Amino acid sequence: MMNHQDQSLLRTLHRNSLTLPLPQYKVVNLMRSLGVLSRGDLAQQLGYSRATISGIVKDLIDRSIIRESADAESTGGRPARILDFNAGFAYVIGVDMGATSVDMALADFRGELLLRHREAIDVRQGPEPVLDRVVERMQALIRRAAISGDKIRSIGIGVPGPVDFLNGVLSMPPIMPGWERYPIRTRIQAAFPLATVVVDNDVNVMALGELRSGAGKGVDHFIFVKVGTGIGAGIVVNGEIYRGSNGCAGDIGHIQADRSGPVCHCGNVGCIEAVASGSALARQAMQAAQSGRSPVLAQVLANGTTQLTAEHVGMAAHAGDKVAMELVKTSGTLIGEVLAGVVNFFNPSLILIGGGVANIGTQFLSTIRRGILSRSLPLSTQHLRIDYSPMGEDAGVIGAVALAIEHIFVGKL
Amino acid sequence: MMNHQDQSLLRTLHRNSLTLPLPQYKVVNLMRSLGVLSRGDLAQQLGYSRATISGIVKDLIDRSIIRESADAESTGGRPARILDFNAGFAYVIGVDMGATSVDMALADFRGELLLRHREAIDVRQGPEPVLDRVVERMQALIRRAAISGDKIRSIGIGVPGPVDFLNGVLSMPPIMPGWERYPIRTRIQAAFPLATVVVDNDVNVMALGELRSGAGKGVDHFIFVKVGTGIGAGIVVNGEIYRGSNGCAGDIGHIQADRSGPVCHCGNVGCIEAVASGSALARQAMQAAQSGRSPVLAQVLANGTTQLTAEHVGMAAHAGDKVAMELVKTSGTLIGEVLAGVVNFFNPSLILIGGGVANIGTQFLSTIRRGILSRSLPLSTQHLRIDYSPMGEDAGVIGAVALAIEHIFVGKL
Repeated sequence: MMNHQDQSLLRTLHRNSLTLPLPQYKVVNLMRSLGVLSRGDLAQQLGYSRATISGIVKDLIDRSIIRESADAESTGGRPARILDFNAGFAYVIGVDMGATSVDMALADFRGELLLRHREAIDVRQGPEPVLDRVVERMQALIRRAAISGDKIRSIGIGVPGPVDFLNGVLSMPPIMPGWERYPIRTRIQAAFPLATVVVDNDVNVMALGELRSGAGKGVDHFIFVKVGTGIGAGIVVNGEIYRGSNGCAGDIGHIQADRSGPVCHCGNVGCIEAVASGSALARQAMQAAQSGRSPVLAQVLANGTTQLTAEHVGMAAHAGDKVAMELVKTSGTLIGEVLAGVVNFFNPSLILIGGGVANIGTQFLSTIRRGILSRSLPLSTQHLRIDYSPMGEDAGVIGAVALAIEHIFVGKL
Repeated sequence: MMNHQDQSLLRTLHRNSLTLPLPQYKVVNLMRSLGVLSRGDLAQQLGYSRATISGIVKDLIDRSIIRESADAESTGGRPARILDFNAGFAYVIGVDMGATSVDMALADFRGELLLRHREAIDVRQGPEPVLDRVVERMQALIRRAAISGDKIRSIGIGVPGPVDFLNGVLSMPPIMPGWERYPIRTRIQAAFPLATVVVDNDVNVMALGELRSGAGKGVDHFIFVKVGTGIGAGIVVNGEIYRGSNGCAGDIGHIQADRSGPVCHCGNVGCIEAVASGSALARQAMQAAQSGRSPVLAQVLANGTTQLTAEHVGMAAHAGDKVAMELVKTSGTLIGEVLAGVVNFFNPSLILIGGGVANIGTQFLSTIRRGILSRSLPLSTQHLRIDYSPMGEDAGVIGAVALAIEHIFVGKL
């Protein structure tokens, strides 16, 4: 149950959103979840009569929100009319902020990315200069697209840390300490007073991207696990992002993976992030190179690289370096074992692995799989699919666009 | 998204349920969630106008589903009329089946338990003789209540194992192997052809009991952890029981708690159930007594007890027996550490601990708390409450009644 304060925050968040009658709102959401549909599909899924659906669809066409076209795949007889979103109804911007880079896209109402921009940033400069730059780049995107600024109905932003979703601020962000409760949404809102502005955790946003237009389409319960500098998960329950009681659900990086592991930056021992993340692999790679245990990694250092990364470990493993192969295997196994606990608790039907470390090769994925299967119950893994995120590095920006589109409308009874 | 087969199974499950218009259905559910309410409360919570709510309420009163009475606490002026359920509208039976006992209650439409019955059973006799007996006892309850059998609109049953909810069968139940996919619902349905019959996992049912009329009332996201012979959790997400993709969500008993622990009956090493459940405590108690390390437990054996239990460990710890205190502490700490992972992933605002081992004293709870807090992130435990289930051993039967009431109606647009 939402309390009064939360309801009021939600109203503030949605003050620029367009109000739709609830049945229309449901049809729009169903089309977002399942893709282009016919009136018959809609009627069946929502349990409305054909006549009711026709009325709702007519209203949505009158509002220019959806449009119809003949189904190219229909054969013979009267072609089924399929429904799709009207691309030009509105435009949105999705922003994927990382600790060291920002990736943004301007998209149409169908979610097609029209223009992209990516550049290096350093969040340690603090929120004001960074967000000033982000706003400037967003305005440049709009100029390049030659559309009027008031056509941007919604802006979605993913940030790397726990987000107080209703307030649009970061809450105790470990890698962005200077951003604690800085009003990110308010700052962006000031530059785009007509748009709805939504801020969410980066991994939630990636999960949303997969849910709306990736491998998570039509999947009720799944998790997106980002293995990068840190480790985190975005959770989808009943086809919606699940944020938990304080907005920090999915913060799996500090689950214990190894009782005899090193001390993590959080102060605890053996967190999965401290033993199996991109930064852990990089640290282990430096040790292996400097001690001479890994000839391939030592060679990379000798060739002038000053800082080894998880990618170097992946390359060395691919080249047959025993120690590098062992590092990949240990990291994947530990992540798998932690995810096994998650599988037993949450019983998802899909786990997608993304983030930078997902680029280091298929051996990493297969050891994660083995780790999960070794410690999960047979019933919970019977239909469990475990894969790399097919969106790869685009999951964040595609998800941010989906987040923006999600909040163009609110439904009202 | 539910597929066609699932939708058809759901229709079968609900074929005896009463259909309500969606707004009426929502009002009934809100009253179940939040308790007695005024029209003003309902209007505010659901975002309907006062006039709309009045129409819906009038219809529900006309249908004899709810009734109104003056608010006793109102002072001066026109008294606010509060709304409550009409106790005699329907009756339900809730059945809590354990491995060795069955507990059942006949309740009115408000959920008040009118009659109780409890007796020993042995599920190893197989489903047919056990369910024959359960049906007989249910019929005896109805006779004792002197109500007509067709007044029983719904029957809720909790069973100790993973449940395929839509089919009403157990799926790979570890402690009830002979029950694998036996049609429990169909069997009960045959005896009560006019009632809706719903079967769910026992821990889910306990969580539902707390959600509807216990410490979980009005709490969006929480878990109920049963520590008994085994260890399992019931999960509430957005005020609803979460079952996962295969109905086995919450099966936390086989999360690894101790890499160097004993081999569990599932074949893996160091599962929390193998090191910290009631049966683990009993086993450890026998060892401590037989080796003479625990004088108090040895004395219990010498007094003629043949099988020590977790309760004996609790009593010995209470009596100051060092080894028993250590056993309680280790068990609580390991459970706490496993739950810390769950907290990081799921970010609930409440954890309720129930089951037989919850009777062994407050030290057990305090070590669980300490275990959780030691390994969770500060943000996720900021507002986290961890308590024993106030319903204790009644959670199962109260939950089974709530499960039954939940399915009396279905809502239709």
